[in-house]
Amino acid sequence: MQQAINDAFLNRISAVQKKFPSYQVNGILFSNISNIRYLSGFTGSDGVLVLSSDTAWLLVDGRYTTQAAAEVQPISVVQYQNKIQGIEQTVKELGLTKIGFEASFVSMEMYNDLTRSLKKAKLVPLGDELRLLRAYKDKHEIAVMKKAAAIASAAVATALACEIQPGWTEQEMALQLEMTARRAGAEQIAFETIIASGENAALPHAQPTNRKIRNGDFVVIDFGVKYQGYCSDETCTFAIGELTVDQKNAYRAVLQAHDEAIASIKAGIAAADVDALVRRVLGKKYSRYFVHGTGHGVGLEVHEAPRLAPNSQDVLNAGMVVTVEPGLYYPGRWGIRIEDTVFVKENSCEIITKMKKDTIIE
Amino acid sequence: MQQAINDAFLNRISAVQKKFPSYQVNGILFSNISNIRYLSGFTGSDGVLVLSSDTAWLLVDGRYTTQAAAEVQPISVVQYQNKIQGIEQTVKELGLTKIGFEASFVSMEMYNDLTRSLKKAKLVPLGDELRLLRAYKDKHEIAVMKKAAAIASAAVATALACEIQPGWTEQEMALQLEMTARRAGAEQIAFETIIASGENAALPHAQPTNRKIRNGDFVVIDFGVKYQGYCSDETCTFAIGELTVDQKNAYRAVLQAHDEAIASIKAGIAAADVDALVRRVLGKKYSRYFVHGTGHGVGLEVHEAPRLAPNSQDVLNAGMVVTVEPGLYYPGRWGIRIEDTVFVKENSCEIITKMKKDTIIE
Repeated sequence: MQQAINDAFLNRISAVQKKFPSYQVNGILFSNISNIRYLSGFTGSDGVLVLSSDTAWLLVDGRYTTQAAAEVQPISVVQYQNKIQGIEQTVKELGLTKIGFEASFVSMEMYNDLTRSLKKAKLVPLGDELRLLRAYKDKHEIAVMKKAAAIASAAVATALACEIQPGWTEQEMALQLEMTARRAGAEQIAFETIIASGENAALPHAQPTNRKIRNGDFVVIDFGVKYQGYCSDETCTFAIGELTVDQKNAYRAVLQAHDEAIASIKAGIAAADVDALVRRVLGKKYSRYFVHGTGHGVGLEVHEAPRLAPNSQDVLNAGMVVTVEPGLYYPGRWGIRIEDTVFVKENSCEIITKMKKDTIIE
Repeated sequence: MQQAINDAFLNRISAVQKKFPSYQVNGILFSNISNIRYLSGFTGSDGVLVLSSDTAWLLVDGRYTTQAAAEVQPISVVQYQNKIQGIEQTVKELGLTKIGFEASFVSMEMYNDLTRSLKKAKLVPLGDELRLLRAYKDKHEIAVMKKAAAIASAAVATALACEIQPGWTEQEMALQLEMTARRAGAEQIAFETIIASGENAALPHAQPTNRKIRNGDFVVIDFGVKYQGYCSDETCTFAIGELTVDQKNAYRAVLQAHDEAIASIKAGIAAADVDALVRRVLGKKYSRYFVHGTGHGVGLEVHEAPRLAPNSQDVLNAGMVVTVEPGLYYPGRWGIRIEDTVFVKENSCEIITKMKKDTIIE
């Protein structure tokens, strides 16, 4: 098993190296830690992965030398005192002259430091070239992401059975939810848990407060965990007590937009078209209360490429894992969001999050 | 109280605006979310704060419009569909022509996008100028950081009383520790909890495993929480059962280095001198097993300026909050780290973390 995983990392590195000619580079510096983990298996928080056309070196500071050596073999691990000097030395030893870097990650300051330090080498910004580096998930990644999703969904189901009722505060529910997931094997939460009730649900990214849930509330729970580094992401909206006709209709509209969007997803569909479909289904009455994009890729980071939004240029393809999360937000009143994470296949998509979304209006 | 806090934000903005002439700018774009929170009080995850010489606008996407308007008044909130276009429009309306940006944060890609978009304006990289922006804490920040530290220390004390004993796994202990802190009011953890026992303690940034604690172990617990956005950071090393003479001597050496470093800290001392003192106290026998820097600033981020390390150019000054965390790491065997967070004053420093560090060798 470990061997198979190590092979997967080497295959990913090899796939990048094969693109060197088209990128017009003979080496690449990776400093985004998620990209480094994706390519090498290193789970630390800081480092640089340097690829030449036929080798890979992981540069780390002294905190990570022992850990990295255990995690990334057969990749060579080099310890640096100073990151820029470590890169300079490595570039020299590997004879790199045209060096790609992550344009969307490397800061101006680091770029200037590298330019000063690597006088003879040419630095080549790689932006669009690396945008989808982690977007296509392999079998192992899908399995891990399903496990993450299952843990998180089960925790929400437990919360629904025990805590989502009048008297509980948002903060108490968030704590219980996270504990349940951790006990079930989650390494950590994937993002700050959102539990937003009543008027707080009108804030798409609300933080849990000490507001007590009461009758007539919508409660939006947006929850995800990490398992083996991979994130899950799912949102349920629950109703406390009786819904008004307006609330029921709004929920039905969001659910229909969510369902139709998911039904439309398959290899080859433009991400912007999925977003447009959601807005079309929501219609004139609701779409102006849908104040964010329809979804995003998920993986080692909870938000990664591709992006499902009006101005997205991305095309969905088999192997991608993305969220579909329409919502409506009525400031000062209430809000609704329904989100599943789906795995894109050739002719359809598979929902990997587990909570049923239609129970609220049954 | 809320008014006083709002005034604090406006004072911070005003302090930055006063430096515009020396930075040779008539505006600054802030996109680092911690800097934005520091200057405006906005607690969301994405946005841009634009300062002109006499005003401040917070640009956010639709997810945050309602939340931002509630959090940052009297600062104007502007909603964008596309971040770069939002910046372009704002720069035009405010008439900015020489615009500073965070050189250590803005990526090459964003810099290029801004350059294309803001044709007539000059972009001015601000690196060293903004490095210490958040380094000097005011009274309110110190009070909040003390509360964060107290919550975390109390959780470690509870763990010491109940869980740090043979049979518990690192993961179980991490979960209990985090739950205790959350119940006591922590918003979330400040960084991934480190609980490293036995040979795992030789990894400075170990992740909790299912290894069971056993007699003869050192257990390193590096734990911090967030309270009102501010982080705490503290490390205790506990002994399970009897220590060997080697272990006792090593612990004493680390404690002495920790104590002498803290005794040396006051306004005006060079951060590199504190680091050098630690290495001098550890001496030839131990210092080569001390594989990281002595400490770092703490605030809205758990690692921020200044830096206490051999090559640091920083000088510690009254109002800064920094960690002092010498450690020894014997790969495959055991490790020790002792860390407190201190508030630098004119003639000394005040330890704000609460666990006693000398009980292990009493």
